[in-house]
Amino acid sequence: MAEIAIIGYGVVGSGSAEVWKMNREYITRRTGCEINIKKILDIRDFPDDELSDRFTRDPDEIFSDPEISVLIETIGGTGIAYEYTKRALLSGKSVVTSNKELVATHGPELLRIAAANKVSYLFEASVGGGIPIIRPLNKCLSGNRVKVISGILNGTTNYILSKMMREGSDFETALREAQQFGYAEQNPVSDVEGTDACRKLAILSSIATGEFIDYRDVYTEGISRVSIVDIKYASDLGYSVKLIAQIRELTEREPEAIVAPMFLPRESPLSTADDVFNAILVEGNALGPSMFYGKGAGKLPTASAVIADVIEAVLHTNLTPHKVVWNINKNISIRDHGECDVSAFIRLKDSAAADGIIDKINEICDVEYVGRKASGEKGYIIGVRRTLTEKQLRELVLNSEECLSMIRIYSRPDTKDTLI
Amino acid sequence: MAEIAIIGYGVVGSGSAEVWKMNREYITRRTGCEINIKKILDIRDFPDDELSDRFTRDPDEIFSDPEISVLIETIGGTGIAYEYTKRALLSGKSVVTSNKELVATHGPELLRIAAANKVSYLFEASVGGGIPIIRPLNKCLSGNRVKVISGILNGTTNYILSKMMREGSDFETALREAQQFGYAEQNPVSDVEGTDACRKLAILSSIATGEFIDYRDVYTEGISRVSIVDIKYASDLGYSVKLIAQIRELTEREPEAIVAPMFLPRESPLSTADDVFNAILVEGNALGPSMFYGKGAGKLPTASAVIADVIEAVLHTNLTPHKVVWNINKNISIRDHGECDVSAFIRLKDSAAADGIIDKINEICDVEYVGRKASGEKGYIIGVRRTLTEKQLRELVLNSEECLSMIRIYSRPDTKDTLI
Repeated sequence: MAEIAIIGYGVVGSGSAEVWKMNREYITRRTGCEINIKKILDIRDFPDDELSDRFTRDPDEIFSDPEISVLIETIGGTGIAYEYTKRALLSGKSVVTSNKELVATHGPELLRIAAANKVSYLFEASVGGGIPIIRPLNKCLSGNRVKVISGILNGTTNYILSKMMREGSDFETALREAQQFGYAEQNPVSDVEGTDACRKLAILSSIATGEFIDYRDVYTEGISRVSIVDIKYASDLGYSVKLIAQIRELTEREPEAIVAPMFLPRESPLSTADDVFNAILVEGNALGPSMFYGKGAGKLPTASAVIADVIEAVLHTNLTPHKVVWNINKNISIRDHGECDVSAFIRLKDSAAADGIIDKINEICDVEYVGRKASGEKGYIIGVRRTLTEKQLRELVLNSEECLSMIRIYSRPDTKDTLI
Repeated sequence: MAEIAIIGYGVVGSGSAEVWKMNREYITRRTGCEINIKKILDIRDFPDDELSDRFTRDPDEIFSDPEISVLIETIGGTGIAYEYTKRALLSGKSVVTSNKELVATHGPELLRIAAANKVSYLFEASVGGGIPIIRPLNKCLSGNRVKVISGILNGTTNYILSKMMREGSDFETALREAQQFGYAEQNPVSDVEGTDACRKLAILSSIATGEFIDYRDVYTEGISRVSIVDIKYASDLGYSVKLIAQIRELTEREPEAIVAPMFLPRESPLSTADDVFNAILVEGNALGPSMFYGKGAGKLPTASAVIADVIEAVLHTNLTPHKVVWNINKNISIRDHGECDVSAFIRLKDSAAADGIIDKINEICDVEYVGRKASGEKGYIIGVRRTLTEKQLRELVLNSEECLSMIRIYSRPDTKDTLI
């Protein structure tokens, strides 16, 4: 019998208890590992909860209980979650979490403390909800050098964009509906502005390389400026619009990384991920491209990944866990964003000044006129064959008052493979 | 330094050496695990191979070498491969393999021997080539009860069917081309007749349940009778034709399992897997549907999974490996195929007798006339809303001389989810 505790009884915390209740017997039978939730720490009361007798407000009841070997940290954020995680690892308890903010910020330190104390710090649930991705990257792809990771890593923005595409709603309407259905938080900033996807990309990149990639080094753009006019252009041109998180040339010293809304070709397998589904493409130098797909958010999917990590941590008690250590940026630093190549869809005003911009772009790369969806504007696809740099894009297009909108076009030029 | 040996230097065996050479330095740096291929067993000579000094024809040189802790078994089949695997595990060496025939046939015994001797028997490469699927199922989904596994598990047949769909080639022509390009073996029976896919389905089902599912209990049909007329119907009706391996109601005592060519709706994420790509859908009771996608065959992709397992085995030397034991069919037996529900596309002769068959089917389930592609025949979709049983299908349609062809229609009625 392994005794565990949950700290923070919100969506994922209570979901973990639910998955445990649902599959408890089966887990014992299949893994030979019997698990009991001994304590739950939360400042709120849950008098009607089936587990109400296990609640406590006193963290010491958990930390000083030698029977409790694994903690589920589902508090979130980098404040008290950080403090408790550190304390647990230092006192020889493994910690399992879905807290991507904490992993993306303090991952290297917490992994080091875990290794030094011969316990595990596991966070499969921090990326892709219930989709297996951390362990496959860490274990199954360990014979590969990973060259590219790109994907749809945030369910909230994917739900909003899917709704805009399908129903023609504008961003604000789609966001409000996402909030009503519980797919977006009341404060949706970290989802909508791309920070959440960026943290997840950084975690995956760190796992793939063994070097800590700081999410704050990755250029990140949210979806709040994507308009319904852009969506219509995309649709007519055979694309969908997705918030893409991408890192490439990951085997080099200066990989390119970006999080931004992009035009994604409809034939790309990634584009089958609509609504709250996530899809993550990983390309290895021996494996080639592979893709992982499933529900990237939600109570039970995410909690099922937490419980899988708990089982792993329990099975590994008294064993030296695998060495997962992230070096702090010794060998890798993200390339200066301005130097990266880009192709994009742009909308410009229907003006002489805008025509002048197009002339200038034409000197650098190719320009394709793709029509007008509204009066007083013109749409162009630029830089598909010969690209321009992000810096040139900014100087020529984004800084100009003639520019109405710009959305990058997804590309994976580093592969010749059939999978786009 | 961990010393390992390769036994059988064919496609995957030599590929494993190649991946090792390619990524050796990186693997050492990232996992802290230095690996050396000390010996290679093969009856053939490879004088020009970079590793030619490590070859031997004497198995004792490997089995009696206490330094060698892990064997890569890439001999294939259930003869000498079985004997050597057993001998290695009994003498305290871990074995890593891509040999699905051996795992599907003697898995329970070999896993038991491995556990008893505190070594590992690992076979990530046996299903889905380089796609991570065994370990994700075994570890990441351990908090779930798996309800459904379905997928495209054989690259050879998928290549042939993709070619038939794209180019209108008939089966024989497509097979010959697959053989020319090395995607099909000279004796393609186990691929073409579905046995290979069936073995892989049985391995995945055993992993998901912890109960041994014998592939010989699964109804299996190959693709050799799929005609270009069927393919054209499929295409016109919005389907692609894929060899689908599927098990469902896997949490029940009598799951349904089948391997057969099927009409797959084009909007299904599975249908993005063309050519040698595989796609595997797994549905858990907490996670919902998830999908794994990538190259299901090929030298380097498969070898990269072998090397990942070698790393795992080496890291676990001297540790008690995870308990993976398959019970021999105690709690699960595959449902009698005749009792399973089915919907299908059928082509009948344009005759009074055929009309009589349609009348009889109409009494049991729904029939939709879908036109004729060739004179003297008619196409129907039967049983989409109210299904008939496989037994009824056989008696009414397949046993009749009026039946020109029949292809089942893929369905996942046990889920209401957006993912088809």
